[in-house]
Amino acid sequence: MRQGLTTQQLQDMDAYWRAANYLSVGQIYLQDNPLLEVPLLLKHLKPRLLGHWGTTPGLNLLYVHLNRVIKAFDLDMIFIAGPGHGGPGIVAQTYLEGSYTERYPAIERNRNGLCRLFRQFSWPNGISSHVSAQVPGSIHEGGELGYSLVHAFGAAFDNPQLIAACVIGDGEAETGALAASWHSNKFLNPIRDGAVLPILHLNGFKIANPSVLARIPHEELISLMRGYGYEPYLVEGDDPLLVHQALAATLDTVMQSICDIQAAARQAPKGERPQRPTWPMIILRTPKGWTGPKCVDGLPVEGTWRAHQVPIADFSKPEHLQQLESWLRSYRPQELFDKNGQLRAELAELAPTGHQRMGSNPHANGGELLRPLSLPHFHDYAVPVNRPGAVKAEATRVLGNYLRDVMQRNLESGNFRLFGPDETASNRLDAVYQVTGKAWMAAIEEVDLNLSADGRVMEVLSEHLCQGWLEGYLLTGRHGLFSCYEAFIHIIDSMFNQYAKWLKESKAIAWRKPVASLNYLLTSHTWRQDHNGFSHQDPGFIDHVANKKADTVRIYLPPDANCLLSVTDHCLRSHDYINLIIAGKQPEWQWLDMPSAIRHCTAGAGIWNWAGTEGPEGPDVVMACAGDVPTLETLASVTLLREYIPDIRIRVVNVVDLMVLQPNSEHPHGLQDNDFDELFTNDRPVIFAFHGYPALIHKLTYKRSNHDNFHVRGFCDEGTTTTPFDMVVLNNLDRYQLALDAIERIPRLRNDVDRARERYWTMMEWHKRYISEHGEDLPHVRDWQWTF
Amino acid sequence: MRQGLTTQQLQDMDAYWRAANYLSVGQIYLQDNPLLEVPLLLKHLKPRLLGHWGTTPGLNLLYVHLNRVIKAFDLDMIFIAGPGHGGPGIVAQTYLEGSYTERYPAIERNRNGLCRLFRQFSWPNGISSHVSAQVPGSIHEGGELGYSLVHAFGAAFDNPQLIAACVIGDGEAETGALAASWHSNKFLNPIRDGAVLPILHLNGFKIANPSVLARIPHEELISLMRGYGYEPYLVEGDDPLLVHQALAATLDTVMQSICDIQAAARQAPKGERPQRPTWPMIILRTPKGWTGPKCVDGLPVEGTWRAHQVPIADFSKPEHLQQLESWLRSYRPQELFDKNGQLRAELAELAPTGHQRMGSNPHANGGELLRPLSLPHFHDYAVPVNRPGAVKAEATRVLGNYLRDVMQRNLESGNFRLFGPDETASNRLDAVYQVTGKAWMAAIEEVDLNLSADGRVMEVLSEHLCQGWLEGYLLTGRHGLFSCYEAFIHIIDSMFNQYAKWLKESKAIAWRKPVASLNYLLTSHTWRQDHNGFSHQDPGFIDHVANKKADTVRIYLPPDANCLLSVTDHCLRSHDYINLIIAGKQPEWQWLDMPSAIRHCTAGAGIWNWAGTEGPEGPDVVMACAGDVPTLETLASVTLLREYIPDIRIRVVNVVDLMVLQPNSEHPHGLQDNDFDELFTNDRPVIFAFHGYPALIHKLTYKRSNHDNFHVRGFCDEGTTTTPFDMVVLNNLDRYQLALDAIERIPRLRNDVDRARERYWTMMEWHKRYISEHGEDLPHVRDWQWTF
Repeated sequence: MRQGLTTQQLQDMDAYWRAANYLSVGQIYLQDNPLLEVPLLLKHLKPRLLGHWGTTPGLNLLYVHLNRVIKAFDLDMIFIAGPGHGGPGIVAQTYLEGSYTERYPAIERNRNGLCRLFRQFSWPNGISSHVSAQVPGSIHEGGELGYSLVHAFGAAFDNPQLIAACVIGDGEAETGALAASWHSNKFLNPIRDGAVLPILHLNGFKIANPSVLARIPHEELISLMRGYGYEPYLVEGDDPLLVHQALAATLDTVMQSICDIQAAARQAPKGERPQRPTWPMIILRTPKGWTGPKCVDGLPVEGTWRAHQVPIADFSKPEHLQQLESWLRSYRPQELFDKNGQLRAELAELAPTGHQRMGSNPHANGGELLRPLSLPHFHDYAVPVNRPGAVKAEATRVLGNYLRDVMQRNLESGNFRLFGPDETASNRLDAVYQVTGKAWMAAIEEVDLNLSADGRVMEVLSEHLCQGWLEGYLLTGRHGLFSCYEAFIHIIDSMFNQYAKWLKESKAIAWRKPVASLNYLLTSHTWRQDHNGFSHQDPGFIDHVANKKADTVRIYLPPDANCLLSVTDHCLRSHDYINLIIAGKQPEWQWLDMPSAIRHCTAGAGIWNWAGTEGPEGPDVVMACAGDVPTLETLASVTLLREYIPDIRIRVVNVVDLMVLQPNSEHPHGLQDNDFDELFTNDRPVIFAFHGYPALIHKLTYKRSNHDNFHVRGFCDEGTTTTPFDMVVLNNLDRYQLALDAIERIPRLRNDVDRARERYWTMMEWHKRYISEHGEDLPHVRDWQWTF
Repeated sequence: MRQGLTTQQLQDMDAYWRAANYLSVGQIYLQDNPLLEVPLLLKHLKPRLLGHWGTTPGLNLLYVHLNRVIKAFDLDMIFIAGPGHGGPGIVAQTYLEGSYTERYPAIERNRNGLCRLFRQFSWPNGISSHVSAQVPGSIHEGGELGYSLVHAFGAAFDNPQLIAACVIGDGEAETGALAASWHSNKFLNPIRDGAVLPILHLNGFKIANPSVLARIPHEELISLMRGYGYEPYLVEGDDPLLVHQALAATLDTVMQSICDIQAAARQAPKGERPQRPTWPMIILRTPKGWTGPKCVDGLPVEGTWRAHQVPIADFSKPEHLQQLESWLRSYRPQELFDKNGQLRAELAELAPTGHQRMGSNPHANGGELLRPLSLPHFHDYAVPVNRPGAVKAEATRVLGNYLRDVMQRNLESGNFRLFGPDETASNRLDAVYQVTGKAWMAAIEEVDLNLSADGRVMEVLSEHLCQGWLEGYLLTGRHGLFSCYEAFIHIIDSMFNQYAKWLKESKAIAWRKPVASLNYLLTSHTWRQDHNGFSHQDPGFIDHVANKKADTVRIYLPPDANCLLSVTDHCLRSHDYINLIIAGKQPEWQWLDMPSAIRHCTAGAGIWNWAGTEGPEGPDVVMACAGDVPTLETLASVTLLREYIPDIRIRVVNVVDLMVLQPNSEHPHGLQDNDFDELFTNDRPVIFAFHGYPALIHKLTYKRSNHDNFHVRGFCDEGTTTTPFDMVVLNNLDRYQLALDAIERIPRLRNDVDRARERYWTMMEWHKRYISEHGEDLPHVRDWQWTF
């Protein structure tokens, strides 16, 4: 290895760093005079000063140095900026290397372009202040903190040549998601996967406080990193020239270590289980707001939390303008840019070229690399259903067979993984283990099953890691599915939000190519948590998803296994959506054969004529349902009604794609009003049995003409460890309640209401007595009489 | 220190452990024959076998040993069971020590009681399978994993005599929240606060996988714990007698270490800053499902993931019944219980008595210890408002003055803390630093401000820690307020869910005394994220909260500083609620003087006559608003309307307490229908400007008679780094849009619609051009003409 930077290298790299810092400060402050060709005046400053300076010089330093090792080691590297509110830095870097102008030709590499670059930053209709989808080379939004490292690992999986350099802010390091992410190294295979280089940037402060990791003793910090399984390398200082040398030497060592680890693993005899290596990581300790003003108004700024955002503000004080000008001139812009405002050629040469530039790495625009999955014919996995209710099946187990073959067919291309928080088998998707194992690079013992260094099922007891890995995997052009207990998906509500925002933004950016959809399969759902009770009963994620932009989210509630197959196949083929699928894992009656299921799922909602009895004059009542358990209860209530009131006219409507309920103006899947009315009528009572909170159905349908007749039953936050039937009773979603609801709302049955209520209370008494005594459900499930 | 357990002690403790294990297995399996007085028959088994065995023997072991040290060291200790799905264990222990029967007299300490104890477990109308609010001595629900350690710290704050023994499952240890929680020791003051004893229980497996921490090398694990700042003590084995001795010796050492640390800190000279000690922690490595069946159907069970739930099932195989009987008899119940089914006296003596029993510790029923806060008169902090719109104020800064004095008045009782993820100052509550600092036990440097070992403001960049600490603090009988950026509160959506469930359950338990409400102040909200853009813009937490039980949640949107004072005072006095308060921090116009604010907040919603013009024939339109920014835009639109259409009749309704909108049948704050109609009329158009997603207003009001005339504007997921006014424009919530909405819906103004639309488009053009050029808002804010 070389013994350090030459004087020339050192000077050039420092100049490149100064250029990036200069452009960063320029973005925060300037709207004119970008090369400081004339003395700085107030009118050159933006009227509103927005941006984050504190973390920026550190990000810039790392980017410059990573550029060097990319060239020296001929690397394929992406940059993940955990402290992504340092947006000006990454924008500056991608501008300097040319990536930015290639994506945004108006931001030319000259004085005019500089002016636009500065002006657009944090400007209405310009670019955001954080690293976002707008920034070339980014797969990571710099807003909510905590997800950088998990994104880096997601990107590295199945990309053996890729190195994800991941800067972790010391503020971010305090978050839960980040704290858990360090252990991702137990899931990374040095043969099959690429490398992640975590760089913990201790600049010491958050918005208003010191950071924890910057204030624990050195030995504790080193011990912590070793405990996470990394070999830490410390680079520390506030003298740029010394830090340049130290960082360069460390990066040489670290890159060599990564190459050695990979070479050793990859040259080992085939079939030998690879060992988990001790990957290197870097701790970089430099001042917050480094190279910025030391003091403002007599208070220290550089090296303190005061450097977090805009260090000099309030330009009513004349000395502030002067101070800003000195700060800007301290980077000696005239040495960095030529007269036209172009970075001097000898500096521009420092950056890599083409796809080796981190702003142009195709992995960071994953759609460019996306190949469609090879999918089997999902019809081949169909549950044979001769007549509705003839057989039972476990929907997710059926899906497991299909997913096994999806996995099988894409093993070679290595672009599909399943993610789950220790629940893949519990969710009955374990057929996949016939073709692949669970990724596991920690120790293995004799008793273990299905663990493998090559496994493509990602299991860890952290929803944050599942979500973050999958996001990183998708944004770098691959495919995946995340299966989760329904209640606990709320753990990643906020990550979902941020990902939905990313998708929305990236769809508006022409050069961002579509990526595979993020697919959730929620099972072990609210209605069948017999083992676990109330803490595991919550269907609110549907509401959370339904709040997001209609062009981004899809919500499916397949009523049986064949519908689940059809819906999942559709989702795996889709792009740029977040697909939410909710389906139970317990043995349940099956309703549709595969041709019917496909028709039904394609329509999104439909009348189940085989269950209804309406005749020419139309129905007395529409019994609607969405979700597998509500469908079961609805059909059972229809059976009861038809038995006790033989001349009743019932229409059964099942909804698979929840978004059909919304007006067409609100969601592309929304039914036209006349189609909606054809399903739900204009004037008949609609008893709607819903998987989630009932109010959501009202929220989706309140603009429909028949809305006032909608009567919705669903989860009303009642639950405990109890039997499946008792769960629906507790929430008034049971067959008896639904039947009573119908009778109460059909005008011509007014005389039957009292008798029906009486019968209802009798049934409830019987139910209560029975389960208190037997601890199990009423033996009430009868044979279904349906035929197609 | 003693040199180990005597033979008698050893035998007795092992017997006590066997008794607890026996009762645990009994709860999972038996509905009869609780003492195995006759050979086990199928009819003695429950029809459905639910529960989690795997973690239970470890929890039981720890409980028995902690009982010993409580007596030996005269300790005040609570037990937090991270792997709380081991419910049968904690139920068994609290039963054995007598706490259970004191709370539930029907569960007598005899054969009959045993039978009921067994039968109620995981039984409809019985008790849940996890540790829950029903279990005496618990402050921690055992459903969703990850929050044990943070709850333990929350309990220990300001309880100098208390030790929170916290068992952390190795599955749970993989979660984000738990991974972040270890660093809570940087916030615990050994003088003022109690101690937390983390016990990492490595039983090696989760549901279906080994756990990460059980499969990293010993040195890494030790290094990790040292990195977190703890001194780890390892106890390991599978021979009960050896483990008893090792655990007893370790607990003696560890308890002595805690006592020494506290003594040293507390005896130090007054005024000397206490140092962060290296607290001890224990790593306990014992087999999963220890003492359970070694093998079932030829497959290993003890020491594997197969022991997770019910190790022997499927009693159609006769050998299973035999195997279960052998397992139960292996605990030798006849040696443990007398003929009547009572624990033998010599064993019962091992448990502590009275409040020293962990199931009877009053800290774990915090309402018993709750003292009301001493609150200043909030009127004293009022912003003087002579006429609406006469002055501007920063609402949260005004509140900060009040909170400072709340802090001041309760410093001595030490039962109030503020929690925030590095945002207290950013949220403009920094007046509190005049009377207290930020808790900080890590290193302090010269540049730091307001850090203090005695600080009562809890700042860490982790919403999980803020939420979890506060939960632990409240459930042990204290008060607090959590201020957070609005968008990022979603990080704790799932913790909120679980806490809401806990509150709902505990309110149904007579012996659980009411605790102080959990108060959220969300600020730096969606509409004023000029610095940060889209990632920081999300008002969806309101929807999340609104899904929960009406008797648990409250949502307030005070329109100005005086209303914020009134609402906050109310919330700090309340019990057993979750109060969500949303208010901006930016300088905004003030509307109500304090008497009006109090009247308005007490009513929850009201007509602002001073802003309206309706006259005797009633309004043409109702302009309604909820939230500070929507209120501003509504009043501005009213100004426009009154200026351009002098004879327009407008009613302005402001909503502070969102739940007034719900029907009275759904929420206790819900207005009666006639009161609602008096505000919103029966037939006039209502233009409703809302802080959050508009659909929520429809969801709350769809049953109201005038609902079809409600036209709601709110956040529709559009955002970026832009000016405040542009944000409302992007989401169609701006004054021009609201005015146009009104004109379009007033029949008698039909002829004005075209002109109004034209004017609207002119305004929008002007707006767009102006902000593109100037990067700041239109100079459109006019003087307000209101008088009371």
